[in-house]
Amino acid sequence: MTLKYYHAEPVANSLKSMVPLIEKGLVYESVYVDLHKFEQHSERFVAINPEGQVPVLDHDGTIITHTTVINEYLEDVFPDMPLRPRKPVSAARMRYWNKFIDVARNVENGEFENLMERIPLPDQRKKWQAARSGFSEADLANATEKIIYAVDKVEGQLTKTAWIAGDDYTLADINFYSHCGMMVERMFPELEIAKRCPRLVAWREKMTARPAVARALRGEDRTAPGLRTWTGHAR
Amino acid sequence: MTLKYYHAEPVANSLKSMVPLIEKGLVYESVYVDLHKFEQHSERFVAINPEGQVPVLDHDGTIITHTTVINEYLEDVFPDMPLRPRKPVSAARMRYWNKFIDVARNVENGEFENLMERIPLPDQRKKWQAARSGFSEADLANATEKIIYAVDKVEGQLTKTAWIAGDDYTLADINFYSHCGMMVERMFPELEIAKRCPRLVAWREKMTARPAVARALRGEDRTAPGLRTWTGHAR
Repeated sequence: MTLKYYHAEPVANSLKSMVPLIEKGLVYESVYVDLHKFEQHSERFVAINPEGQVPVLDHDGTIITHTTVINEYLEDVFPDMPLRPRKPVSAARMRYWNKFIDVARNVENGEFENLMERIPLPDQRKKWQAARSGFSEADLANATEKIIYAVDKVEGQLTKTAWIAGDDYTLADINFYSHCGMMVERMFPELEIAKRCPRLVAWREKMTARPAVARALRGEDRTAPGLRTWTGHAR
Repeated sequence: MTLKYYHAEPVANSLKSMVPLIEKGLVYESVYVDLHKFEQHSERFVAINPEGQVPVLDHDGTIITHTTVINEYLEDVFPDMPLRPRKPVSAARMRYWNKFIDVARNVENGEFENLMERIPLPDQRKKWQAARSGFSEADLANATEKIIYAVDKVEGQLTKTAWIAGDDYTLADINFYSHCGMMVERMFPELEIAKRCPRLVAWREKMTARPAVARALRGEDRTAPGLRTWTGHAR
């Protein structure tokens, strides 16, 4: 059995499927794809994934793409050290949160409103609808409100359960951490996350301290230091 | 054990989780939510799903929302008459197609390009990039090209396999049928789908003929006849 994982820097999608590989103790060959050199569009890489995207999992020659698909596949094939709860309702909670995170990442695309609860915010709702007419300041306010909605929702969940989808550490934690959680304060300095969301910060520390996450983050960062908006300071 | 399914007309998301319920021979209480009266925003419904969206599955009081989550849940709890292949690689193919269909539905949101293969269309690609500047005719051409890309991709797959995700009838077929397949000719009359995509049309007929699909489609359509752009002529 051989596993190959094609990926860029350990952040966002490249991190999201790397952590499960390491958590499960799987031995895999790491293949770095340099996005700064557009290697994902190279003939060699496109022969592997015609969509020209990282990450890609090669399992004995079977190519699996898209992080959610890869991560469910790893659960199906390597069920030890489960990151998808075995209880169906808990798995459904995990998939609900994955969906929420995937949509929240694309805050601009209009799907986000569909995930917001209908009761509490009639005033904001009206304001946002008005903002739709397209002034960039209103758009920014709109995006900020949604980001606040999302981080408050996660914070609220973490007052009820130890992890995002319930009492188990799951793929939903890894998803949120990879795309936003690991750098939430740096992404939104104006939100004073540490004050607003203490449980989110505590959860983030708990994630960062996991040996598998720490090992993934030690991966080489080839981004020019000035461009490291995601992973932060040079290491 | 009691199952309740809250839904609107048998099309799109409401159809997508209804077909698996019927395929599996599950007895469920059907609760119609009248979107034309905004019942999905009523106090009674929002108490069930705070996001104010149909469909919703209530399984012995456990509420599950979002069609992909509902459908995976049904597979986990009621594995007989599987609509998710048991072989991990086949399940991954099904999830890949579900992802493709979900993104293709939102052709405007910019994510679609990520699903397109990188090689074959450099000229179109450039044209679309130019179209980004925002003329509505160019936008329309852009959307049309993407729709052609999507239906050709499905047609191509159906030259290789009997169903969309492989040799088994799966949730991917139900997803594509519910959102586009059932009315593809009426949605895009200018594309001459019957000529362009004979296998897609044959697949569509095969889907429509399935007893479970036919039974779902017989559900009452309360849409005003003039507004039945999706389900077609009055019945």
